[in-house]
Amino acid sequence: MATLPRLLLTCGDPAGVGPEIAATAWRDASLHRSARLRVVADVALMRRAVRETAGTTAMAEVDVAAVAPDDLRPSTPDRLLVVPTEPAADLGPRGIATAAGGQFAAAAVLAASRLVRDGAAEAIVTGPLNKAALAAAGYRVPGHTELLARDCGLTDVSVSMMLWLPPGPGMHHSDGLGVVHVTLHMGLAAAVAAITQSKIEAAGRRLHAMLERLLGRPPRLAVAALNPHGGEGGLFGDEESRLIAPAVQALVGEGLTIEGPLPADTLFARAAAGGYDGIVAEYHDQGHIPVKLLGMHRAVNITLGLPIIRTSVAHGTAFDLVGTGTADASSMKAAIRAATLLAATAR
Amino acid sequence: MATLPRLLLTCGDPAGVGPEIAATAWRDASLHRSARLRVVADVALMRRAVRETAGTTAMAEVDVAAVAPDDLRPSTPDRLLVVPTEPAADLGPRGIATAAGGQFAAAAVLAASRLVRDGAAEAIVTGPLNKAALAAAGYRVPGHTELLARDCGLTDVSVSMMLWLPPGPGMHHSDGLGVVHVTLHMGLAAAVAAITQSKIEAAGRRLHAMLERLLGRPPRLAVAALNPHGGEGGLFGDEESRLIAPAVQALVGEGLTIEGPLPADTLFARAAAGGYDGIVAEYHDQGHIPVKLLGMHRAVNITLGLPIIRTSVAHGTAFDLVGTGTADASSMKAAIRAATLLAATAR
Repeated sequence: MATLPRLLLTCGDPAGVGPEIAATAWRDASLHRSARLRVVADVALMRRAVRETAGTTAMAEVDVAAVAPDDLRPSTPDRLLVVPTEPAADLGPRGIATAAGGQFAAAAVLAASRLVRDGAAEAIVTGPLNKAALAAAGYRVPGHTELLARDCGLTDVSVSMMLWLPPGPGMHHSDGLGVVHVTLHMGLAAAVAAITQSKIEAAGRRLHAMLERLLGRPPRLAVAALNPHGGEGGLFGDEESRLIAPAVQALVGEGLTIEGPLPADTLFARAAAGGYDGIVAEYHDQGHIPVKLLGMHRAVNITLGLPIIRTSVAHGTAFDLVGTGTADASSMKAAIRAATLLAATAR
Repeated sequence: MATLPRLLLTCGDPAGVGPEIAATAWRDASLHRSARLRVVADVALMRRAVRETAGTTAMAEVDVAAVAPDDLRPSTPDRLLVVPTEPAADLGPRGIATAAGGQFAAAAVLAASRLVRDGAAEAIVTGPLNKAALAAAGYRVPGHTELLARDCGLTDVSVSMMLWLPPGPGMHHSDGLGVVHVTLHMGLAAAVAAITQSKIEAAGRRLHAMLERLLGRPPRLAVAALNPHGGEGGLFGDEESRLIAPAVQALVGEGLTIEGPLPADTLFARAAAGGYDGIVAEYHDQGHIPVKLLGMHRAVNITLGLPIIRTSVAHGTAFDLVGTGTADASSMKAAIRAATLLAATAR
């Protein structure tokens, strides 16, 4: 039997639902059969999370134990393995953004990134951050995607955010859907101005490469138009003919199976029905609105272009649910499964 | 028994699926129980449409008969009543945009609009137009919404397009969802620049008034943010604090139940789950992407701000399906039901 890949989970902001969804996901025995899991966190934080989520399953009690980064043991549902971080988590008030929470969250993900690059693990799976807490701690980034890009010595345009929806309800005849974003964390006016042919091409190439790994076959891709009705022949903006169509032609010339620009309002429904495996979205909400409608709790966020494998939940800290043990861990489980698959295909 | 409202159906472009979905909808006996239907069209065109859709139902043969605009008889599923138009429909090649098709389509909808304003009917229900055909015929408008606004002596900003999703699959705990658009048929860069506080307020007022009629109670509304993460506190654009929040405050001051700005990527999922009855969307695709995902074939297009009642299918001419008799008439039927309800509440 091949050695199982090691996955490092982080909780994101300790004042959010991240610790709880990590604890809930840990109880899923199926996840441990194909990966060795560890949580890069604080032992006291995870003990509390395990306790607060105990009522959600019929499982036996879960022990929490600290392990060294180079510990090689398999993981099991009954013992949650923590690789401790400095600083320890702030176990003070929850449900609000604090500098201490932001500092803990950033330190954990940067430590996990370092461990993967040092060969102590094969992938990281991250919980939800709070941007205000990050900023209060001195990290002026919109989120994980940019934080990890900079930590790996890359600029923001070197990486892309992909949302991945595994097959599921409402997606008949589909093997899942990947949506990559040409622009991401900026105002809509700035995003429209920031779209270039080369960024569309880069997003298309990254999407193709990632979906080929996830699906095990060349994916069928489409590029969304920016303007309504696909620009209506140039009447509603010219980005389709000036930027998007040339990018699609270039990618077709490279051998990708890709079409576009296609009107965005019908494209996602066609993809969900199995028409496409992946879509290049021009801006944040163009991709996020349909993915969250199709599967808010099943979506996974995967960063493309990093030298390491990183998947994440696709939801926020849900401050209103903290401490109730009721937060839905589906996205965390799906993120663990996607990271496991990617780690296996990377070897 | 009260007199049933008279509804005038138009087919849109005669080269598209409009005649067929009108003929298919006509066979639904339930629609005739609460309205007197007529099709403003060409008898030969509707005879062909009836023939081509005969295989889709087990109904007896449907007769097609011309009637005068002031004919008062009830309508029945077995006899399709046509108020003839000039020019007659072009029965030449279908599945393509022609000037003749555009001329017929525009003439039919303008005739129907005139008849409603003259008191010969209470509402119009329109089939799908082709914009290129309209332009070839000399009508330089993006669609029905603007054509009818100008015909009624209004400017484009005096009317708003609302998409209406009746309750249905994927919308548990919801009485239906109305989505109005602050900007509509323009490029995205131009749309962002065209958003003003007064346009947001006008859209919110029109949405409130229309949903109050459709639901029979004051609706719960939300206004979508323009920028990702709702602008992230001003980091990703300032339209939220500068335009949207003041508009929402003004509408709250007028007594509307309305919240916002709210991040668009989770708002539509929350509304579909019953959290809101109506959403103010800032631009075309922000509203169209989620509505078409939630119910491509059930959605109805309703024009707000016109002096007449006008509902429409929310899909296009589907040139690839023409003549097959297989086009889905659900949107046409939903548009007829919505117009019937609105005509009843107007009296």
